[in-house]
Amino acid sequence: MDAEPFAAGTFQASSPADGTPRTLSLGALELETGGRLPQVQLAFQTWGRLDAQGSNAVLVLHALTGDAHVADGPEDSDGWWRDLVGPGRVIDTERFFVVAPAALGGCAGTTGPASPAPDGRPWGSRFPFVTLRDMASAEHALLGHLGIEAWHTVIGGSMGGARALEWAASYPERVRRCAVLASCAASTAEQIALSQIQVEAIRLDPAFDGGDYYEREDSGPVRGLGLARRLAHLSYRSEAELGQRFGREAQGEETPLGSADRERRGRYAVESYLDHQASKLVGRFDANAYLSITEALMSHDVGRGRGGVAAALGGLEGIEFLIAAVDSDRLYLPEQSEEIVAALPGEVSVDYIRSPIGHDGFLTSAATQLEPPLRRLLG
Amino acid sequence: MDAEPFAAGTFQASSPADGTPRTLSLGALELETGGRLPQVQLAFQTWGRLDAQGSNAVLVLHALTGDAHVADGPEDSDGWWRDLVGPGRVIDTERFFVVAPAALGGCAGTTGPASPAPDGRPWGSRFPFVTLRDMASAEHALLGHLGIEAWHTVIGGSMGGARALEWAASYPERVRRCAVLASCAASTAEQIALSQIQVEAIRLDPAFDGGDYYEREDSGPVRGLGLARRLAHLSYRSEAELGQRFGREAQGEETPLGSADRERRGRYAVESYLDHQASKLVGRFDANAYLSITEALMSHDVGRGRGGVAAALGGLEGIEFLIAAVDSDRLYLPEQSEEIVAALPGEVSVDYIRSPIGHDGFLTSAATQLEPPLRRLLG
Repeated sequence: MDAEPFAAGTFQASSPADGTPRTLSLGALELETGGRLPQVQLAFQTWGRLDAQGSNAVLVLHALTGDAHVADGPEDSDGWWRDLVGPGRVIDTERFFVVAPAALGGCAGTTGPASPAPDGRPWGSRFPFVTLRDMASAEHALLGHLGIEAWHTVIGGSMGGARALEWAASYPERVRRCAVLASCAASTAEQIALSQIQVEAIRLDPAFDGGDYYEREDSGPVRGLGLARRLAHLSYRSEAELGQRFGREAQGEETPLGSADRERRGRYAVESYLDHQASKLVGRFDANAYLSITEALMSHDVGRGRGGVAAALGGLEGIEFLIAAVDSDRLYLPEQSEEIVAALPGEVSVDYIRSPIGHDGFLTSAATQLEPPLRRLLG
Repeated sequence: MDAEPFAAGTFQASSPADGTPRTLSLGALELETGGRLPQVQLAFQTWGRLDAQGSNAVLVLHALTGDAHVADGPEDSDGWWRDLVGPGRVIDTERFFVVAPAALGGCAGTTGPASPAPDGRPWGSRFPFVTLRDMASAEHALLGHLGIEAWHTVIGGSMGGARALEWAASYPERVRRCAVLASCAASTAEQIALSQIQVEAIRLDPAFDGGDYYEREDSGPVRGLGLARRLAHLSYRSEAELGQRFGREAQGEETPLGSADRERRGRYAVESYLDHQASKLVGRFDANAYLSITEALMSHDVGRGRGGVAAALGGLEGIEFLIAAVDSDRLYLPEQSEEIVAALPGEVSVDYIRSPIGHDGFLTSAATQLEPPLRRLLG
């Protein structure tokens, strides 16, 4: 299979243009649950310039299958959050120095299961268990490397929001402001259950080979990964949106009702939609990385080892928070954002994105509803 | 593998005791989408006695993985709806003649994919596409066989409710009353999507062998079927119930946070719960039958070929309806029950089961909330 998109980045540049890949070598990283990665590469991208005081740096943290390309690069307009991050946007790259790392354990340049282990072969099944706390731990090195005293703001949505909250709890003196969007303080039973099903889908694929599939001639465990993505995607959208967009329509000229031959059944439009979502992801994402990050997300509990969520968040007086939820989100329930504000010190209330589409609302044009609260937070 | 539980029943008896397996040979059955089954066996069970007018017969239709054993048998107390069906229960077997067939395409005795095809080998991948309408069509033979003019009541929950609605729309002159619990008039995009994921999970299992796995030495596609069941079960319960029962607890002494070795990660309690649900189902259900019935459910649209749902239901003046929903159901949304009553003629309103547990509320003790409306319906 083509392992190219999953290989850890090797590009280095002393003064790169906005939105170009950079890599920081961290050396060894001790992991929260006892593992050790002897050589970690941290991929990241930046936009704008750090001011003389090192005080205008904004850390943007991506979601499960995201990457460091938050805003547009020198020759593209592919930034996944370009509605919010860029010149003249609410996170204005002419004012802020925006820094976006790729998560540890993923496949967007930072060391992950597809990266070479010390023996030169991909880590594969040998990649250790990592947590969101380990991701923050790896990213901490960016401060010294870039000459930043503390982040002006740390911001993320979905898993990125969970990462932001971990940053705040792990390094409160390094975080001035923190924006947690469509996320939670700890993964719930429901979120763990949905994750387990996705993990099992990948492991069920006969091409998974226990995680050591990189030398296969075929395309690897793309069916299992696609199956996981179908379920994940369903949780990112609302029932109402699916109903309005697809209803019971057939896909094109296909006949979903089937014929006498069950194997030749055509698809409903919503099936084709899920197929498309699966196909898009498997072309850009590594199955082991999906496993690694999904299990990290299952482990998410900002209160772990800190006396619980209330204690972990209750002591963060020095940080100004923005907590936002999508009203129709059925994966990261609005109640979970309410739980965060209830645990935080001071007067914080949840800002709502009103959108019928569900969790993905924080990524779509609906996210522009975050502009007023973000302006308030950013000052 | 042990195909025993899936084989079509062969027991015949002229005057069997309540709740013992019976089989009716239907001969050939022409299917809605063009297929043909040359020899159909319909498994069913009965309780009580038909009155002289043949007017006290109640048809109880089971859900996706249910069977004909609705109430207790002569030597067991395993009836899956024994809270509602039995001597002195609201569906009183001392007053009513209760008849419960096993669905066509399943694995509870009625002809399905594990049944022998004319060549003596299991149908497997050759089993034709069946619909809920085909199930009703097969069950129609029970009327003549048992000497019933029309059903006093047809009742079912979940897929059983969809089957009941199909009965009413297909044979309105044969149905006096109809109770549709936690169900819908047509599967939605969301329901189709959840079904597709389950179907794909089974097909992904390397032991599925394209559906012809009956001669394998191993236990067949139990992982794929278990994966499908995990997702289905999640949709049957509410997020709140899972959170209250399991939260982020570890399963016993297991360590879900993992160790350095990701493969040895322990489980959260909710994972163990889903594993248990999967394990229970695969011990009693055939993967091909799950596929067949799930695809039948995807096809569910009582308005198909009848000018739409409103037209199909709007003409059923001669039938008295009870439409009930579980208020916390996230699979068969209460709105779907409201849509049914909006389409029905006359004054019908939705009766609600108040329960925090979700769709399964119609099967648990909460179902006793149906007693008042059922008494009203049954007269």
